[in-house]
Amino acid sequence: MRKARHPAGWWTVMMGAAAGAALVCAARWATGDSQAASSSPIGEKFWPSEFGADDQRGAANRITPATVVSAARLIQTGQVYQLGRVYEYGMPLPGKRHFSLTIPGLPTGLPSGSNQMVSNDELFSGEIGQVGTQFDGLGHVGARINGEDYFYNGNKLSEFGDPYGLKKLGVENAGVFFTRGILLDVCALRGDDRLPAGYVISPDELTSCLERARLTIREGDVVLIRTGHGKLWMQDNEAFGAGEPGIGLAAAKFLTDHKVALIGADTWAIEAVPHERADLSYPVHQWDLTKNGVYHLENLDLEQLGADGVHEFCFVFSPLRLKGATGSPGNPIAIR
Amino acid sequence: MRKARHPAGWWTVMMGAAAGAALVCAARWATGDSQAASSSPIGEKFWPSEFGADDQRGAANRITPATVVSAARLIQTGQVYQLGRVYEYGMPLPGKRHFSLTIPGLPTGLPSGSNQMVSNDELFSGEIGQVGTQFDGLGHVGARINGEDYFYNGNKLSEFGDPYGLKKLGVENAGVFFTRGILLDVCALRGDDRLPAGYVISPDELTSCLERARLTIREGDVVLIRTGHGKLWMQDNEAFGAGEPGIGLAAAKFLTDHKVALIGADTWAIEAVPHERADLSYPVHQWDLTKNGVYHLENLDLEQLGADGVHEFCFVFSPLRLKGATGSPGNPIAIR
Amino acid sequence: MRKARHPAGWWTVMMGAAAGAALVCAARWATGDSQAASSSPIGEKFWPSEFGADDQRGAANRITPATVVSAARLIQTGQVYQLGRVYEYGMPLPGKRHFSLTIPGLPTGLPSGSNQMVSNDELFSGEIGQVGTQFDGLGHVGARINGEDYFYNGNKLSEFGDPYGLKKLGVENAGVFFTRGILLDVCALRGDDRLPAGYVISPDELTSCLERARLTIREGDVVLIRTGHGKLWMQDNEAFGAGEPGIGLAAAKFLTDHKVALIGADTWAIEAVPHERADLSYPVHQWDLTKNGVYHLENLDLEQLGADGVHEFCFVFSPLRLKGATGSPGNPIAIR
Amino acid sequence: MRKARHPAGWWTVMMGAAAGAALVCAARWATGDSQAASSSPIGEKFWPSEFGADDQRGAANRITPATVVSAARLIQTGQVYQLGRVYEYGMPLPGKRHFSLTIPGLPTGLPSGSNQMVSNDELFSGEIGQVGTQFDGLGHVGARINGEDYFYNGNKLSEFGDPYGLKKLGVENAGVFFTRGILLDVCALRGDDRLPAGYVISPDELTSCLERARLTIREGDVVLIRTGHGKLWMQDNEAFGAGEPGIGLAAAKFLTDHKVALIGADTWAIEAVPHERADLSYPVHQWDLTKNGVYHLENLDLEQLGADGVHEFCFVFSPLRLKGATGSPGNPIAIR
Repeated sequence: MRKARHPAGWWTVMMGAAAGAALVCAARWATGDSQAASSSPIGEKFWPSEFGADDQRGAANRITPATVVSAARLIQTGQVYQLGRVYEYGMPLPGKRHFSLTIPGLPTGLPSGSNQMVSNDELFSGEIGQVGTQFDGLGHVGARINGEDYFYNGNKLSEFGDPYGLKKLGVENAGVFFTRGILLDVCALRGDDRLPAGYVISPDELTSCLERARLTIREGDVVLIRTGHGKLWMQDNEAFGAGEPGIGLAAAKFLTDHKVALIGADTWAIEAVPHERADLSYPVHQWDLTKNGVYHLENLDLEQLGADGVHEFCFVFSPLRLKGATGSPGNPIAIR
Repeated sequence: MRKARHPAGWWTVMMGAAAGAALVCAARWATGDSQAASSSPIGEKFWPSEFGADDQRGAANRITPATVVSAARLIQTGQVYQLGRVYEYGMPLPGKRHFSLTIPGLPTGLPSGSNQMVSNDELFSGEIGQVGTQFDGLGHVGARINGEDYFYNGNKLSEFGDPYGLKKLGVENAGVFFTRGILLDVCALRGDDRLPAGYVISPDELTSCLERARLTIREGDVVLIRTGHGKLWMQDNEAFGAGEPGIGLAAAKFLTDHKVALIGADTWAIEAVPHERADLSYPVHQWDLTKNGVYHLENLDLEQLGADGVHEFCFVFSPLRLKGATGSPGNPIAIR
Repeated sequence: MRKARHPAGWWTVMMGAAAGAALVCAARWATGDSQAASSSPIGEKFWPSEFGADDQRGAANRITPATVVSAARLIQTGQVYQLGRVYEYGMPLPGKRHFSLTIPGLPTGLPSGSNQMVSNDELFSGEIGQVGTQFDGLGHVGARINGEDYFYNGNKLSEFGDPYGLKKLGVENAGVFFTRGILLDVCALRGDDRLPAGYVISPDELTSCLERARLTIREGDVVLIRTGHGKLWMQDNEAFGAGEPGIGLAAAKFLTDHKVALIGADTWAIEAVPHERADLSYPVHQWDLTKNGVYHLENLDLEQLGADGVHEFCFVFSPLRLKGATGSPGNPIAIR
Repeated sequence: MRKARHPAGWWTVMMGAAAGAALVCAARWATGDSQAASSSPIGEKFWPSEFGADDQRGAANRITPATVVSAARLIQTGQVYQLGRVYEYGMPLPGKRHFSLTIPGLPTGLPSGSNQMVSNDELFSGEIGQVGTQFDGLGHVGARINGEDYFYNGNKLSEFGDPYGLKKLGVENAGVFFTRGILLDVCALRGDDRLPAGYVISPDELTSCLERARLTIREGDVVLIRTGHGKLWMQDNEAFGAGEPGIGLAAAKFLTDHKVALIGADTWAIEAVPHERADLSYPVHQWDLTKNGVYHLENLDLEQLGADGVHEFCFVFSPLRLKGATGSPGNPIAIR
C-alpha cells in the first residue's frame, strides 16, 4: 500500500503529471494560493542565509584555502577514484528528460591540407545538469509560499528566472569543491547488499559510520553516503528509478548542523523515496538546497571506494560554469 | 594577401566549405584518393603508440600515482584558480556549432507536497565537447591516408566510428588529469599585451619561459601556454576567432619530446592560425592528438595565473565521461 | 530618436532583456502587479470566444467543408506556389533562438543485408515553431492581467502551461487551412520596392488592394500581405530583423471584422515594428491571437505571387501536429 | 525461429548494432569491400534516373499542373482528413532516436508594453524527419557498392554528404504533393482487424483493392496502403515497432511500374518486416527511393479513411523545406 500513501518518485514528479502529487498540489502559479507551506520543514522565512543576504554560493563558502591545503594533505598514495558515471544511451532518465549524443558526419570536418586532417565533433541534447551523475545547484529546488517560488536566500523565481538561464543562483557561482571527503558506508554498516527503497537512514547510523571510520565531520567537508542502490545502475534501471534508500530530514539536519558543503550519494535523490512523511515532497532537497545552501551530488559510483574501505580522502569536483544553469554534470574524484 | 595563402581558421574549416581549403582537399571519402599524406608531419604509419597497440588513453598514461602525490605537494596556500570560461549565450562559436541553454517551465517541476517543492532543470543543445572551454580527446582529430581516416594508435574511423558515439577513443577513456601544471607565459616573456594572430611560438621561447620560471618539464606534466589572446574572449569575438597565436610543429615536438600529458592555452586551437606552413591544416593537432596521444585543452582563462605570476601548480581536470564523445567541456583548476 | 521612443523588435523582446522594454515592463510573475492592462487593446475580459467558451481552434473554425469546396474551385491552372522559406543555417533568428540541423554519421545507418542498404537521418534542434516560416498558434501570445497570463478564450497559463508542451491551445488543435487566399500587395499598391520598417499599413490601403483585385474578403479567408520586406531575407538579415512594415491595430481590426481565419505576411511579425504606439508591445499579436483567435503566418515568401499578380488562390497549410506546441513550421502553398 | 533468420526491424538497424545485421554487413566504409551488391534488387548501376541525370526530385516530377487541376476536381464534399499523427512524448521511436519538446520559461517572453504582452516558444530536439509521421526523401536510403554509398541518380554520399545537411537530394528539392490519392485497404480486403507483422502484401492484393474501388493507378498518383498496423500506435508501441506487414519487392515494382509519386502506409517502413527474403535489408526502400525516386510516407493514420470507405481523394502534402534534410515531418491531408 506504500504506493498509495507516498508521492511517486522524482521520475514522476518531474513529469508534472503525477496523479498522486496532484492531490497535494496547489495550482501552478496560482496567485491566490492559500495553501501556505505551513507544514514545510523550512518554514516561511528561511532567509537570509548565514553567508550573507546577497550570497549565491551557499555552503561552498565553507571551503577556504585552509580547507584546500588540509585536503591535499590527505593524498598519500595517489590513487584516484572516478565517482562519475559514464553518460550513455540507455542510462536511467527521470520523467521526460532525454539524452542524445551524436557525431555529425563521421568525420565532421572535411580532410584539409596536404596533411589531410579530419576531425569529429559531438552534438549533445538533454537536461545536462539533471541527467546521469549530477550536481544540484541552488537554482534547482525551491518552495512555493503564498504564490511565490522562493529559492536559496529568499530569491524569488519571478525575479531571477529567465528562460535562457537563471539570472541568479546559476551553477557558475558555485566554484570549486576541493575539500576533504568522507564516505559514510551505511550499506556496509548494515551488512546489506543494498538498502531497500524507502529505507530512511538515521542520524545514529551516520554517527556509527563515523565512529567505525574514527572520523568526525568538519566544516566544509563533503559527505558521500553509500547505500548500495547504485548497483542497480544500468543493471535494473526500472528498480533504480522506482525508489531509493536515503537520508530523511533528521539525518539531513545532522549533516547541515555539522556544516558540510555538499552531500553525495549513489542514488538519484540523496533522500529516501518513498519519503518518510507522505505529505512532504523531497523535503531533504528543500532543507539542504533551499534553506541551507548545501549542495547535492547524485548518481555517484561509490562501489570502489566502498570495496576498498576508503573513508577519508581528498575530494575534487569542479562544476561546469554553465551560466544560469540549475546543475552540472561531472566526474567528481576521490584521491587518497 | 595572407588570407589567400593560408587556410582559414578552425572557424571556417569546421564549416566544411572553406574555398581555400577546397584547393588542397581531396574529395571526402574518395576511395581512389591518390593524394597520400606524404607531406604529413606524422607520416603514413604513426602507430603503434608507445603506450601499447591497444591503448586508448594516450599521454594520460603518464600520470601515475606518484605524479598525483607529487602534484598534491605543490598545494601550499590553497588558492584555487578556475581556468574554465563561463559557457554562455554569445560566446565565440566556430563554424556552424551552436550553444543553447534553456529552462523548461520556470519552474520545471510543479509544486508538490504540503511543503510545495518546486524545481528547475536546464536543457542544453550544442557541440558539448567543442564549444567554450574544451578538451580535445583522441577521437577528435585524425588523418586521411589512402582513403582511410586514421586516428590515434592507427584506429580507423571506418571501424570505430558510430553516429551515436565512437566505439573507441571516446573521452570516457581519458581518465583524470591530476598532475603538475606549468604556465609558460609567452605573452609576458615578450612583453606584449597579447601576441598577434599567426604568431608562431618557438621552442626557444618555451625554453626561455621555463628558465625564467626556473622549471624543467617532467613526464606527465600539463603545460599551459599564455598568449594573451584570451583577452579577446567576449570582448571581440570576431578577432578572437579570426586567427590566433600559438605553437608550431617545432614547439609541439619540443613538448611531446618532454612527454607532457596535455597542452592547454588561452586560444581556440593551441597552434598558430594562420599556420606556419600554408599547405598544412592544423598540423599540431595531428602531431599531438593523432600521433602522440597528447591532449589539448582550449579556450582557457589564464589571465589570473599570469597576473599572479604563478608558473607551477597542481592541475586538476576530470573530463565528463561522455561515452564515445570526441571531447569534453570542463572547468579545469590550478591550485597552489 | 526613434529607438528611444519605440520598443525594440521581436528580436530583442524575445531576449527578455531589452532596456527599452524594461521601462514599461512590470516584473515577471509579479503577483502584486498593480499595472493592469488597462490600456490594452483587448481589455481585461476578452473572453469567451465567439466560437464557444471551450473552443481551442479559434478562427480555424471558420473553414467549413463549403469553404474547402469553394477554395478548390479556384484551382484552374494547377500552378503551385511554395510560400515557405528554406530552413537553413544563417537564416534570421530572433533573440536567443537557434537552428541546428546535422546528419549523424553519414551514413547514419550501417550497410546491412546483401543489398548493402545504408541510410541517413537528420537531427534538428531549435525553436521549431518560431524560426523561419512560422505559424503562430493560440498558445503563443497572451496578456498579463492582474498577475495572471491570459491567452485565447481566457485560458490561464498557470493552468494550461506545462514545461513539456501546453495542455491547452496546442497547435495540434488548429486543424487544416484549406481555404481561399487573398494577396494584398501593399508594396505594389504604393509602388515601392519595399515598405520601410515601421510603416503602418492602414485599413484604407487594404481596401484599395481589394478594389484593385476586385475582391471582397469572405469569412474564413486567409489574407496574405506583401510588403516587400521579405526581399531582405538572407540578403540583409540585420535589416530584416531590425524592424518591419506591417499592419497596425486599425488594419488588424479591419481584418478580424471581416472574419478572416489567418493573416500572413513576408515579415517576421505581421505588424509594424517599431509599433505605431510606443507604449504597446505587439498589440496586433494580442488582438489577433489572444482576443480573436486569428492565426499568424510569418516569414512567407510572397515574391512570386506578387510578380505574377496573383491575388486570389486556393491556400493550403497543414500545421505539424506538435502536441502542446505554440506554433509550427511549414511550407504553405498557394494554387491557382 | 523467425528472429534468427530475419534481420531485425528498422528499430534495430538504425542503432547500427544489430547482431543479426552484423552477419551480413560489410565493415563500414571499408574501401576494399568485395561484397558487392550483386544480389541487390537495384543492381550495381541504377542510374541515370528517367527524370534526367541531374534530377533531384524523382517521382515528384510526375505531378504536373494538369495533375493538380485533376486532383482538385476530386474535392466534392470538402471533408478533410488529417493523416498525420500527433507528435508527442511517448510515441514509438526507432533505435536511438529521440523526441523532446519543451517550453522555455512559461512564459518565454516577458510581459512588455502597457498591454503586458507575454509569449511562449517551444524547443524541439530530435531526428525531425525520421520520427512520427515522416516523409522519406531521396537522401535517406542508398546502397553501398564497391565501397561507395550511392543514392538516387547515382549520387555518391562521399560527394554530397555534409554534416550540416546534404548538398544534394535534400528534402527542400521535393516540392509539393498535390495529386490524386488512392487508398488501397488491404486490411479490409482480407477482412482482418490488422495484418500480422511480416505479412507480405502481393501485387494481386493491390489489384484486388483497385478493382473493389473501381480505380486504376495513374501516373503521379499517391498510393496509401492500409494494413491496420497503425491501430497499435500509442496502444502497443512495442508491438508496433517489433515488425509490420507491408509490401514486398513484387508489389513495390507493381507500384513503380504504375508510376506513382509516393507510397504511404500506416506502418513505419511501408514494407514487410521481417522481410520476405532474410538476406535483404529494406529492399523496398532501396527499390523505391534509391532506384526509382519514389517517396515514402510512414506512420500515417489511415483509420478514418478506411472507416469511411474513402478510396479516391485529393491528397496534399507539402514537406518542410529543411535544407539538406533526409526527410520531413508533416500532416498530410486527404480531401474529398
